[in-house]
Amino acid sequence: MFRMPDGRNLPDPASRFQPEGVHHPSAVVDTRQFRWTDGEFQGHSLRDLIIYELHIGTFTLEGTFAAAIARLDDLVELGITAVEIMPVAQYPGSRNWGYDGVFPYAVQNSYGGPKALQGFIDAAHARGLSVILDVVYNHLGPEGNYFSNFGPFFTKKYSTPWGEAINYDDAESDTVRAFFLQNALYWLRDFHIDGLRLDAIHGIFDFSAHHFLAELKEAVVGLADRTSRTLHVIAESDLNDARVVYDARHGGYALDAQWSDDFHHALHVLLTGEKSGYYADFGSVEDLATILRDGWLYAGQFSRFRKRRHGNSPKGVRTDRFVVFSQNHDQVGNRAGGERLADLVDLEGLKMAAGVALLSPFVPLLFMGEEYGEKRPFQYFTSHGDKGLIEAVRKGRREEFASFGWSDIPDPQSEATFERSKLDYRAKDDGSHQVLREFYRELIKLRKKFRLGGSKPEVEWNQKQQTILLEYREQGITVMYHFGNAEIALSTPHGATAGFMILNSNDSRWRDLPATSPAGQSAERIVLGRNSFVVFASTAGAEL
Amino acid sequence: MFRMPDGRNLPDPASRFQPEGVHHPSAVVDTRQFRWTDGEFQGHSLRDLIIYELHIGTFTLEGTFAAAIARLDDLVELGITAVEIMPVAQYPGSRNWGYDGVFPYAVQNSYGGPKALQGFIDAAHARGLSVILDVVYNHLGPEGNYFSNFGPFFTKKYSTPWGEAINYDDAESDTVRAFFLQNALYWLRDFHIDGLRLDAIHGIFDFSAHHFLAELKEAVVGLADRTSRTLHVIAESDLNDARVVYDARHGGYALDAQWSDDFHHALHVLLTGEKSGYYADFGSVEDLATILRDGWLYAGQFSRFRKRRHGNSPKGVRTDRFVVFSQNHDQVGNRAGGERLADLVDLEGLKMAAGVALLSPFVPLLFMGEEYGEKRPFQYFTSHGDKGLIEAVRKGRREEFASFGWSDIPDPQSEATFERSKLDYRAKDDGSHQVLREFYRELIKLRKKFRLGGSKPEVEWNQKQQTILLEYREQGITVMYHFGNAEIALSTPHGATAGFMILNSNDSRWRDLPATSPAGQSAERIVLGRNSFVVFASTAGAEL
Repeated sequence: MFRMPDGRNLPDPASRFQPEGVHHPSAVVDTRQFRWTDGEFQGHSLRDLIIYELHIGTFTLEGTFAAAIARLDDLVELGITAVEIMPVAQYPGSRNWGYDGVFPYAVQNSYGGPKALQGFIDAAHARGLSVILDVVYNHLGPEGNYFSNFGPFFTKKYSTPWGEAINYDDAESDTVRAFFLQNALYWLRDFHIDGLRLDAIHGIFDFSAHHFLAELKEAVVGLADRTSRTLHVIAESDLNDARVVYDARHGGYALDAQWSDDFHHALHVLLTGEKSGYYADFGSVEDLATILRDGWLYAGQFSRFRKRRHGNSPKGVRTDRFVVFSQNHDQVGNRAGGERLADLVDLEGLKMAAGVALLSPFVPLLFMGEEYGEKRPFQYFTSHGDKGLIEAVRKGRREEFASFGWSDIPDPQSEATFERSKLDYRAKDDGSHQVLREFYRELIKLRKKFRLGGSKPEVEWNQKQQTILLEYREQGITVMYHFGNAEIALSTPHGATAGFMILNSNDSRWRDLPATSPAGQSAERIVLGRNSFVVFASTAGAEL
Repeated sequence: MFRMPDGRNLPDPASRFQPEGVHHPSAVVDTRQFRWTDGEFQGHSLRDLIIYELHIGTFTLEGTFAAAIARLDDLVELGITAVEIMPVAQYPGSRNWGYDGVFPYAVQNSYGGPKALQGFIDAAHARGLSVILDVVYNHLGPEGNYFSNFGPFFTKKYSTPWGEAINYDDAESDTVRAFFLQNALYWLRDFHIDGLRLDAIHGIFDFSAHHFLAELKEAVVGLADRTSRTLHVIAESDLNDARVVYDARHGGYALDAQWSDDFHHALHVLLTGEKSGYYADFGSVEDLATILRDGWLYAGQFSRFRKRRHGNSPKGVRTDRFVVFSQNHDQVGNRAGGERLADLVDLEGLKMAAGVALLSPFVPLLFMGEEYGEKRPFQYFTSHGDKGLIEAVRKGRREEFASFGWSDIPDPQSEATFERSKLDYRAKDDGSHQVLREFYRELIKLRKKFRLGGSKPEVEWNQKQQTILLEYREQGITVMYHFGNAEIALSTPHGATAGFMILNSNDSRWRDLPATSPAGQSAERIVLGRNSFVVFASTAGAEL
């Protein structure tokens, strides 16, 4: 600990390990001493990423890096190419999503600490899996946050919903910027992390002439060049701003990719019919088709939810610069009950969600458990030590959802909420779960075989029929999605490249119930029910 | 007035005229009814601008637009091509710099109101003078500010030193943006204003995907295109950010030009030796030479004053995209005593200041009175009605300067402070004043004749000799500035294009005292004292 001028002992803000938690002494760990065995690992390019987002604490019953290793073979078998781990920076207590971290360089003790993380990454690399780490540079957590004792980490110029704004452009900001920039390099260098997912960059306020994120990316490019590694910097952004990925000559930060929440929302509304909150801004197949074509929908239009115009045009941005998903920790966990999509729609809906994300040209991200339709929720959980904070979080959570008419909100601080949110691996071997997982596997196989990632399909839609046609001309693949309630019969396959049907989500093979539709539909007459899709290949030899 | 739900009567935030001040009824004025006589006026291109900044209240004894008209011929005779008037939006009382305005569409009643402004502009245009208006879009004044009763004008996301941040990117910001964007068009359209000077754009916080200033500029370009007019949007910016003038394809706001405070500071330090506050960041002839070459100095270097790195590179930006000055309302008025440069340096220093600004390739701006070395100060003055506010401003002013060791701070609220700040036109006809004014006239003539504005000189400097050489090769002009204390003798003129000396600031013609230097120095031997400069032309016929 550091002895402060006022006599207090405080842990090191750049601590690598807090074995006894956020209020106790820092342990000195040389993170460069790990014996890596991943010399052969090459990494995956952006277009080849198929990301699996997981939370170490709830991914396994044990909630540790060591236990997570045992699950990696399953992911490889599924076809996943990258795991993305939710933040591991030390947070108060032993249960937290990770966004309350207060030691950006320390690895959560309850997960196993820094060496265990290195072991996890080495194990992932041994299996050909890239590892992306979620890092939080927009705020620091509320408990164990001793930063203001050590330097000018915060500024009053801006305010964030999550606490004091980090000082990226005010007096003495150079060292603060360096602290976080070096943090990025630390994970990539000492932990062999292959990519960073930057949490909520709309909370990184920097009006200076050299934006922190541009500087960060330049440093990562420098490291990648020196080491011949493939490194990714991916932003979660609520801005719909193409400049996030534009290069510096075009005024951008040159990040590799950014999340498209619009993709999720448009798809979610078509599948569930929900219209509250930000879902009010979406609704039609045209919305989703536009996103499949451009990357996002709001490119300057008025947003009812935001009560202002939103976004700029993503046109011309490469398709692998968008990360898309039908579920993620926020979209599931920030519901009052933390319900997964499997709790909201039937199997056809789940398959449709998978089909839209995995057969899109964008970088798909799955949220742990979605591949087998996990029914357990992913709820908001904490284990703060500060009584006032505990009550404030409880109250905030209750009030947040009261306006939606929700009352029975799980208690974030309760251990039961955490336990309830753990994946139930036994479920994976049940009937419909097994079918869904096989279906995900098939889609990923198809995605890889035809190299859909990063390509540029033609997109058409039919509002009346509620269909979207995705034509990958170069790849010889056409996907027809049908969202309508009425069954439609396709007399001939649509699209110039259509020919041989290689996948039908309605097929009895992909149902948990005995087949109800006539087996062996001919390519000349295909009947599509609600939330179903078919894939055609232009050449006969193209079957999977 | 508007009757509010709570029974109060409030003036119109979009009022065109507040005949009785900020707390009283708005007058309905049709600003489109003025009979303009300026159909022949063409406007001046950016590179031809020679700007004269003036404050209507202190430019004349009367302090009105009508009285100001009588002074315009003088400015034309001096060679000025544009007047820039400090903000005219209605502020509390009758004495204010204008940055406390609270009715962005109303023209200050004590200046004469909207029709008088139109008359002033028409008179300026009749004389071939462009008119630039200083507009404040970063905050609203503290008294008579009824905006929050009318709409979501403010946001808590950001804070400014001058009051609540205007809501440019938060919920319901579209109408707020429209309110200010239409304000810009209103001045340009209904008042025939030729250009806007946007006050302190570093206080306009907009993190949205379409920055307010980019949107504003697009609207101004639309108006210019429809009306075939030459319209300028010029920013005061503390950011040293080249993106302010980059076009949209390069991530910029595409503004026409921006102020270079670095130019002022570097020059001021060389002339005065002052080193406090932001002057600590400047000091050498290399600093000034770099600015003459690039536009500003801080392009990412660490700034001691700001305690962080500052700015990005201005290289490649056209020279007429920088507005430069040796004095302006802020640099004079924000000194404790409001001392002008004429109070700080001798005549040689004043001529040097003029020579560096007016023979630079940038757009020069003069502050009213500097051209004849006005000795009266320009102090900070207000005439608020709110007692608490009056005391707070007094206190703030005292505290601001206490740290510099100043104690005898003029009382901002006192009428005497305002009266003291008025130009003394009688001074203009005194000896040294007359000489200085003639010198300014000569420099402007030279600048125009050789079309220095917007060109791209080569710049060299000699730290030992304390000289800067400005070589306008295409124009056949070379300027040698000497800041050293020791006299230097130039045995041969410097620079490839040098040949015939056409101006020597040391010449007896430009002194208020009888000539002390030998008259008729040959071009082969020129002695330069401290703060003197010479201009050479490459061809004999080039004499003025």
